[in-house]
Amino acid sequence: MSFEFKLLHQDQASRARAGVFSTPHGDIPTPVFAPVGTQATVKAMSPRDLEELGASLILANTYHLYLRPGAELIARLGGLHRFMAWNRPILTDSGGFQVFSLQGLRRVDDDGVTFRSHLDGSEHRFTPEKAIRIQELLGADIIMCLDECAPPLDRAYNEAALRRTHLWAERCWRAQTRDDQALFGIVQGGVFADLRRQSVEFLTALGFPGYAIGSLSVGETKAQMHEMLDVTTPLLPADRPRYLMGVGSPEDLFECVARGIDIFDCVLPTRIARNGAVFTRRGRINLRNACHADDPHPIEEGCTCYTCRTFSRAYLRHLILAKEILGLHLATLHNLHFLLELMREIRQAILDGTFVALKEAFLAEYPTSQNEA
Amino acid sequence: MSFEFKLLHQDQASRARAGVFSTPHGDIPTPVFAPVGTQATVKAMSPRDLEELGASLILANTYHLYLRPGAELIARLGGLHRFMAWNRPILTDSGGFQVFSLQGLRRVDDDGVTFRSHLDGSEHRFTPEKAIRIQELLGADIIMCLDECAPPLDRAYNEAALRRTHLWAERCWRAQTRDDQALFGIVQGGVFADLRRQSVEFLTALGFPGYAIGSLSVGETKAQMHEMLDVTTPLLPADRPRYLMGVGSPEDLFECVARGIDIFDCVLPTRIARNGAVFTRRGRINLRNACHADDPHPIEEGCTCYTCRTFSRAYLRHLILAKEILGLHLATLHNLHFLLELMREIRQAILDGTFVALKEAFLAEYPTSQNEA
Repeated sequence: MSFEFKLLHQDQASRARAGVFSTPHGDIPTPVFAPVGTQATVKAMSPRDLEELGASLILANTYHLYLRPGAELIARLGGLHRFMAWNRPILTDSGGFQVFSLQGLRRVDDDGVTFRSHLDGSEHRFTPEKAIRIQELLGADIIMCLDECAPPLDRAYNEAALRRTHLWAERCWRAQTRDDQALFGIVQGGVFADLRRQSVEFLTALGFPGYAIGSLSVGETKAQMHEMLDVTTPLLPADRPRYLMGVGSPEDLFECVARGIDIFDCVLPTRIARNGAVFTRRGRINLRNACHADDPHPIEEGCTCYTCRTFSRAYLRHLILAKEILGLHLATLHNLHFLLELMREIRQAILDGTFVALKEAFLAEYPTSQNEA
Repeated sequence: MSFEFKLLHQDQASRARAGVFSTPHGDIPTPVFAPVGTQATVKAMSPRDLEELGASLILANTYHLYLRPGAELIARLGGLHRFMAWNRPILTDSGGFQVFSLQGLRRVDDDGVTFRSHLDGSEHRFTPEKAIRIQELLGADIIMCLDECAPPLDRAYNEAALRRTHLWAERCWRAQTRDDQALFGIVQGGVFADLRRQSVEFLTALGFPGYAIGSLSVGETKAQMHEMLDVTTPLLPADRPRYLMGVGSPEDLFECVARGIDIFDCVLPTRIARNGAVFTRRGRINLRNACHADDPHPIEEGCTCYTCRTFSRAYLRHLILAKEILGLHLATLHNLHFLLELMREIRQAILDGTFVALKEAFLAEYPTSQNEA
């Protein structure tokens, strides 16, 4: 089958665009933020929570699921959608990012990469063919090529890694056997404009139903990230979705949608929630702080999530200090609601032609270089 | 206000009875099982989960809430119902059980008990008046007298503790200032029939709107527990509810309902769930066991809880082994559903005159001396 990406509106004042990406498990309105379900669960959320939040796409991690419980087991149980009871679209990464983030032994050669499990130290090997095979067993709607992730500022490393990433992209492209999964190529090249251009050129010549942009937000400055997007997205075909991997703070959503990105994922909202940090329109707050001890107000007045409709900051602070599971759940619920709702607002603004005004209004209130949590 | 306990049906073949206890936050159909919300949350459950499960009464712990976040803070925020967003009936214990369970320094005298916080080692003192004051600040519908909990098999200890428990019961009775809370007396006396009788006599002379039975299921045999109920409940007034504190395994519910108990609470369903153990009609199973790794079936076929309607044992096992919060949530949800549903079945059987038949059929399938989790 072919994967239709229907562009509904191209903003005139920026490169922002609104569209719909159709998959076997339903349509994904874009731009979209995908909550991360590393181990086949978005931490502290049930599928019905995610449905209530209006999540239309979630991510799961090939590396983690390959190690535990194993891709064959998930396939025997009917695939990842059935296993985790999520009937809407899923995206799996290739496992590359996790493998190249591992401390300790890792050997990469042109054929693949050998690594040790963080769970038990056992040795494993991913090749492009193996990464596709695992992702076909998992059965996500959107799957990724195996790539080599390089430190973004290291020129020589990026040149070598890019050559391999392209070799592997071609092998992934050939290895794919299922036609009901959209295989995305991954643009690499660190902070080097010529390498990014070269990567786009190579991958678009192969022709993928979508393109990911990798190794951003992993050590370079915001300015460098924006520059790389400015170099990359104009060269990508307008009729294919663009996925910026691992990026998803509120300010990043605005800046990167403005630069033509359609799909985002990030552990930020779920991870900071488990530390007691929650989003508001005026920046993050940490519920552990003593100033919230007596506060009868919700995290954010007017927020329509279950947490804000129901509970005070004082109660949430109590739950988090008392290490109660409900505190993690309610903070996660709010943070995901915040980003998903923000993205729906962004999309509507693109359709209404008011995206840049919304972006400016939001960023005027929201502190951008905040790192409280 | 007075607290009405309406007896709907007295079983002919046992001392089981079905009724309704009316409180300011609604009616409690009895017999009832109350999930435990130690720190103002039933672990891993939201209020809407509990509403979906049909919980009509939950318990919260005075000792824990007094220490953190503090009863005054909860009162300032509108009381416990509002604080935790639970608008149905709540029962608070007096704190006595926790204080007398603490390891380390504890000094009891006729006036009260001095103890150290398990959180920070700070020194605190509960008197009967203080226990009532705290519970009035919390604002539960049912509150408890401060009592001295003794090891059930120690005769001399129980004689001394019972004298004090009765002194304190009278002081609690006098100390109460709110008329919208039902203060229950607590029958003590260990495994000694004469002490239990003496306790019932003393407390019923004061006249409480309900009676709790304490210090059972804490070291004595099941036979001794049953004997103490056989001694106690026939002496308690039929028109007041009877609450057996801290008891709530499936087999205990049947055996103790049969002996005239109306209200139960127990951490068992929530605690074992967090260890991966779940109830079925044929006994407990532990989801960690390897035999569930590939199992596509729910915990229990035909169970109508969200967990069983949605997920396989294989997925639940994966979540629990991967230490995912969702695993704790789903196992807890199932266990609470199991007990609440069982209690609804028991109540209906009492009304239908089929309680003893249900009890025999259930216990024939359910292993009673099981301790897998």
